[in-house]
Amino acid sequence: MHLKLTVLGIGSASPQVGKNPSAFLVSFNNEHVLVDCGEGTQHRLLEKSIKISRLKTICISHLHGDHYFGLIGLLSSMNLSGRTEPMTLIGPEQLLDILNIQFLAANTSLGFELNFIKTDNSKSELLLEHKAFTIETIPLIHRVPCTGFKITEKAGRRHLIPEKLPKSFPVAFINLLKDGKDVTDPLTQEVFKSLEYTKRGEPAKVFSYCSDTAYNPVIVPIIEGSDLVYHEATFTKELEDRAAKTQHSTAEQAAQIAKDAKVKKMILGHLSSRYKTTDAHLEEAEKVSSNVEMAVQGAVYQI
Amino acid sequence: MHLKLTVLGIGSASPQVGKNPSAFLVSFNNEHVLVDCGEGTQHRLLEKSIKISRLKTICISHLHGDHYFGLIGLLSSMNLSGRTEPMTLIGPEQLLDILNIQFLAANTSLGFELNFIKTDNSKSELLLEHKAFTIETIPLIHRVPCTGFKITEKAGRRHLIPEKLPKSFPVAFINLLKDGKDVTDPLTQEVFKSLEYTKRGEPAKVFSYCSDTAYNPVIVPIIEGSDLVYHEATFTKELEDRAAKTQHSTAEQAAQIAKDAKVKKMILGHLSSRYKTTDAHLEEAEKVSSNVEMAVQGAVYQI
Repeated sequence: MHLKLTVLGIGSASPQVGKNPSAFLVSFNNEHVLVDCGEGTQHRLLEKSIKISRLKTICISHLHGDHYFGLIGLLSSMNLSGRTEPMTLIGPEQLLDILNIQFLAANTSLGFELNFIKTDNSKSELLLEHKAFTIETIPLIHRVPCTGFKITEKAGRRHLIPEKLPKSFPVAFINLLKDGKDVTDPLTQEVFKSLEYTKRGEPAKVFSYCSDTAYNPVIVPIIEGSDLVYHEATFTKELEDRAAKTQHSTAEQAAQIAKDAKVKKMILGHLSSRYKTTDAHLEEAEKVSSNVEMAVQGAVYQI
Repeated sequence: MHLKLTVLGIGSASPQVGKNPSAFLVSFNNEHVLVDCGEGTQHRLLEKSIKISRLKTICISHLHGDHYFGLIGLLSSMNLSGRTEPMTLIGPEQLLDILNIQFLAANTSLGFELNFIKTDNSKSELLLEHKAFTIETIPLIHRVPCTGFKITEKAGRRHLIPEKLPKSFPVAFINLLKDGKDVTDPLTQEVFKSLEYTKRGEPAKVFSYCSDTAYNPVIVPIIEGSDLVYHEATFTKELEDRAAKTQHSTAEQAAQIAKDAKVKKMILGHLSSRYKTTDAHLEEAEKVSSNVEMAVQGAVYQI
């Protein structure tokens, strides 16, 4: 299993030349999860030749436009391309009404099922249990209900230690052992213990997405030990008051979260359009944690 | 007065690399009218350094996404930039509900007035009488209610013939003459006739926008003599059946409209994404009218 993050957009609310608003693609082998979907996201996917037929789950953190105005266009294009495969959509309750009123006005009936799961920003919940990963929410503090998402890849299957096994051991038995189950031979009643005949598979990888939020240490235990975390850093610390008022974070505050949660790597984005470079953010964050860097639009992170 | 058309997007429903969906900017000296607003339009305006504060009227032809999904983002950005000047929005009735549900979800109250004028696709109506131009609707035939827009610049003021006038003729009198009014000197009772002391100003220029429509000769008398017409040409004539079924036009049909309406120039766009070049469309149209050319994204037409 390979978990990969593609950064499609790191802009904030005001449009900026060359920056897409928030959109992040989490890819497993053959399947994608899109996290937030600012205006223009479908064009970014197209430019990167990412097959939208392989996109099966979309998570929307909150209903500020720079995080979801591209969703209706993306879903409409999927429909136009003849999609029949269901789509799981995770987001705030009103999102479904917003989509439906637009589909109705266009006289569009979707040719695929939209399985909607609503978020609740008052707590962390497991919302999706997929065969390859799970999605849990991260409660955030913002001017409208907002959640982040913790996407945990399931641990790889256990690896067989072939030299230990009897010759011509049945394949069905091998698969059970790899799944961590012990096997009793029906003829001899001999018990083969999974722990004895297999070793641990690849550990589960975790990507945590912390969308717009005021400084919120409540999330530390939830994202603790994540392999990669995206965290917003709209301001630098001399605008800490403005960050508090608008319920955003400073680079220093984001880095403090990285440090306290002992994350392996944190990338920062959603900088206010007033900043023309990322230097001040990076300098400020590096003083707190050496595991923080600036997110780069278009970059791909192998987790 | 200079009337200018900037082509911001000529794409059709399926997203295509390097093509923006429909959006056209009609500019008078210091003021813009935006006609349709596909996803990404605010980014195209930004790239072209067009000041959105000078955009005071937006016309939406119909509620298929490639014609309006960029509107909510554009209005949100205007609000974020502190706009207080009213905006006139012209479009189908449900548009206002679609915007309002999204503003509500974002907890946004607009800092500027949105003067909404709803369109009625059953007839041609004068919807806006501005000091510099008028906007009338063009009834179109599509799968959802759809109108085009005829934007007529008002004729320039009459030009003074200075050598005919008495010396030290009062400026206030001159302005009345330029406005086409006769002036009576209060002392001498002498009458100065506007027609005698002025000559005709620049003639009114007309831009007609024919959005998604089946072949519709009803519009011929409405757009007759237009200086510039944009007309959709989704298909070429070997797909005429498909054009009829989906209520779109072929290049040949659009050119027939250009010919019958004796328009000075027609530009074609909204080509289906199945066409990789514009050659077939152009060849087909040129057989019917020599006044037809292909619209070019990013091009500016001085009318």
